[in-house]
Amino acid sequence: MTQAAFALRGNIIYSVSPRELACLPGGYLVVDHGRVAGAFAALPERWQGLAVQDWGEALLLPGMVDLHVHAPQYVFRGLGMDLPLLPWLNKYTFPEEARYADEAYAHTAYSAFADALRSGFLTRAVVFATIHSAATLRLARLLEQSGLIAYVGRVSMDRCDVAALAEGESALADERAWLAELAAAGLRRVRPVITPRFVPACSPELLVGLGRLAAESGLPVQSHLSENRDEVALVAEMYPQSACYGAVYDSFGLFGQTPTVMAHCVHCPPRELDLLQQNGVFIAHCPQSNINLTSGVAPVREMLARGMRVGLGSDVAGGAHLSPLRGIQDAIAASKLRAALLETGEKPLSFAEAFYLATLGGGAFFGSVGSFLPGCAADILVLDDSRSRLPEHDLFERLQRAVYFLDERALQAKYVEGQAVYRAPGAAHS
Amino acid sequence: MTQAAFALRGNIIYSVSPRELACLPGGYLVVDHGRVAGAFAALPERWQGLAVQDWGEALLLPGMVDLHVHAPQYVFRGLGMDLPLLPWLNKYTFPEEARYADEAYAHTAYSAFADALRSGFLTRAVVFATIHSAATLRLARLLEQSGLIAYVGRVSMDRCDVAALAEGESALADERAWLAELAAAGLRRVRPVITPRFVPACSPELLVGLGRLAAESGLPVQSHLSENRDEVALVAEMYPQSACYGAVYDSFGLFGQTPTVMAHCVHCPPRELDLLQQNGVFIAHCPQSNINLTSGVAPVREMLARGMRVGLGSDVAGGAHLSPLRGIQDAIAASKLRAALLETGEKPLSFAEAFYLATLGGGAFFGSVGSFLPGCAADILVLDDSRSRLPEHDLFERLQRAVYFLDERALQAKYVEGQAVYRAPGAAHS
Repeated sequence: MTQAAFALRGNIIYSVSPRELACLPGGYLVVDHGRVAGAFAALPERWQGLAVQDWGEALLLPGMVDLHVHAPQYVFRGLGMDLPLLPWLNKYTFPEEARYADEAYAHTAYSAFADALRSGFLTRAVVFATIHSAATLRLARLLEQSGLIAYVGRVSMDRCDVAALAEGESALADERAWLAELAAAGLRRVRPVITPRFVPACSPELLVGLGRLAAESGLPVQSHLSENRDEVALVAEMYPQSACYGAVYDSFGLFGQTPTVMAHCVHCPPRELDLLQQNGVFIAHCPQSNINLTSGVAPVREMLARGMRVGLGSDVAGGAHLSPLRGIQDAIAASKLRAALLETGEKPLSFAEAFYLATLGGGAFFGSVGSFLPGCAADILVLDDSRSRLPEHDLFERLQRAVYFLDERALQAKYVEGQAVYRAPGAAHS
Repeated sequence: MTQAAFALRGNIIYSVSPRELACLPGGYLVVDHGRVAGAFAALPERWQGLAVQDWGEALLLPGMVDLHVHAPQYVFRGLGMDLPLLPWLNKYTFPEEARYADEAYAHTAYSAFADALRSGFLTRAVVFATIHSAATLRLARLLEQSGLIAYVGRVSMDRCDVAALAEGESALADERAWLAELAAAGLRRVRPVITPRFVPACSPELLVGLGRLAAESGLPVQSHLSENRDEVALVAEMYPQSACYGAVYDSFGLFGQTPTVMAHCVHCPPRELDLLQQNGVFIAHCPQSNINLTSGVAPVREMLARGMRVGLGSDVAGGAHLSPLRGIQDAIAASKLRAALLETGEKPLSFAEAFYLATLGGGAFFGSVGSFLPGCAADILVLDDSRSRLPEHDLFERLQRAVYFLDERALQAKYVEGQAVYRAPGAAHS
């Protein structure tokens, strides 16, 4: 037993698999050197004498993971949610992203985003920024202070109708320069991710360069895949030799050659699902965004049945809500509507499966993350659910009520790799 | 000008039609004898000298209307939202509803429901209770105290597999006795509504009796219609001579012969839509419930295009959320998924249309209610949107942000027919 070890006492819930939740009322969660040593009904012999933070009736949940979020879109979330994709992009997304050329503006806007992350239920995130190096470096510094562990991507795109958002021939050099700047900043929690916006926004030359960069550096990759039918058709037109949209990324070495997460995957043909699976690519399922932007609903039931790697993304601001609790609700709802309207005969997602997506499913992109199985990173949420629980509820029912009814006010404390990164004013354990 | 007149100053927004929102920054809303005299940019000559409550930067919105909510299900909302309909009914709905035989239990549970209504965004509701007369009378008294204007229905059902929930031969006599008790209670804001649970739960004899009761008393009617395919098939089997499900209600005089609201209407064939329209029946569109219970999505675009009468219902606990703000979000989202998955080519609901459904669309069931057009009942919400607005937002954008991000904390004050029925602690106008 070292000083680096401690325990939290409370009502422990975590995923042990996509389908199975472990519920341990009044249990002990032992943290050792930033990792989970185990979740126990009583403190085992070897941990006797350990400092115990007793959180009483609170829920102890794994920290949640957002595999796909656009930081510069946080500021206009909730606007134009009744618009189709193109008018929404033209009215809100493109003008707003252009503003991040102004570093002072970026600092203000990104500060609000980082504050929301700090006091919310996320402990990890994979983040899109914009093409602007200085602003993205600001974002990285702010995220470092938020306490989350995050991948941040400076966006690469040299094809865009909006002139202010298209990089020139220096796109690749600018990306390399930005990576060097980030490395020099010496951040501990925030790491870079290579971020081609999506195939249609990048020249083949840029994609070649980014693929080489990934191979050289081993850096992970994030992008968008098969979000809507028009986009899939456009890529097929641009790359007629390619077996599918995903195969384009693959041909450039941007599809699992290094750890990769692809957002959406709503309209993947079978061969694309095969390729995603073979290459171990993570899928960021973004149900709310897919609904808001009239994209459809990804075939998550099939992905899970095949054992593919899937987590949740808020896709703010395609999704209006940053909270992963809303993401869990939306994942269930979207799968039910898919079943009802497409009459696929698929079983909708269970609550346990949706909770898994928000925690262990997405957490796996970061390694052993998103559960309280021994060896997992000790990313922990302490939730006061007194506003949503009733005396007769068992722990599983309390979790459901928490997901449907709690907001950030419920967050008492948050730990990332065993370090306390957030404590609500007045929150205390005994 | 009488003492019964006063004005509120603030940022006024209301529907003037299904498609059109009026936005009046820093306007005056004049209330006279409980009705809206008008919304003005400046106080007109005839109202000079009127007492003005200045709510500063707050939003002034019409009170919202829930056309379909099950009061006894409030207590278990958010549980089993991943279950199909039948397991959900058997595990949660039926056992819970049976508990309302216990008047003391009913008082506790209904108090929580009434408290939520009091401090929320609704000013009117059409409510299902249970078969229990004493408990339903308790509910009516609690709703009266909540300040809302409500229709409350003691449920009539004499066919149910759950013995505790099936009324016997005295069903009709019990309903009449309950109506007399309610009349004797002398409530001002709460009125009764005849409430056959739905066709399969009622014997033809009971439906005949309820239809006669409606004709004699002029009382309104509420029930469920064409919520899911199995139910529609069952009714077709029970009433093979009937042209459609709605025609069964119609044949018993329970379909617009008196003011009628039918919940769901997801799977109405064209002739049923015709009948709903001809008879002026109101439709309670319950998007969240229809998603959660895998029912589908009602054809609201077509209903609006035909000029049919539609409002929103939370259908708690088929819907987990009582807030009509969530209902607006869900109405837009459901219509988008319907468009995306069924590829109907229908235009999804606009924000203005969804807001209309939550206010004027449902309000019309109560008369001139749900807008600030002159002559409407002065049902008013005062919202502090400082948590969701940004300086650059126009009033329409502020409203969108309010709908997506505010919760009950934003409610500063609430007026029903010009009477203040709620004031948040510390909330003050100048």
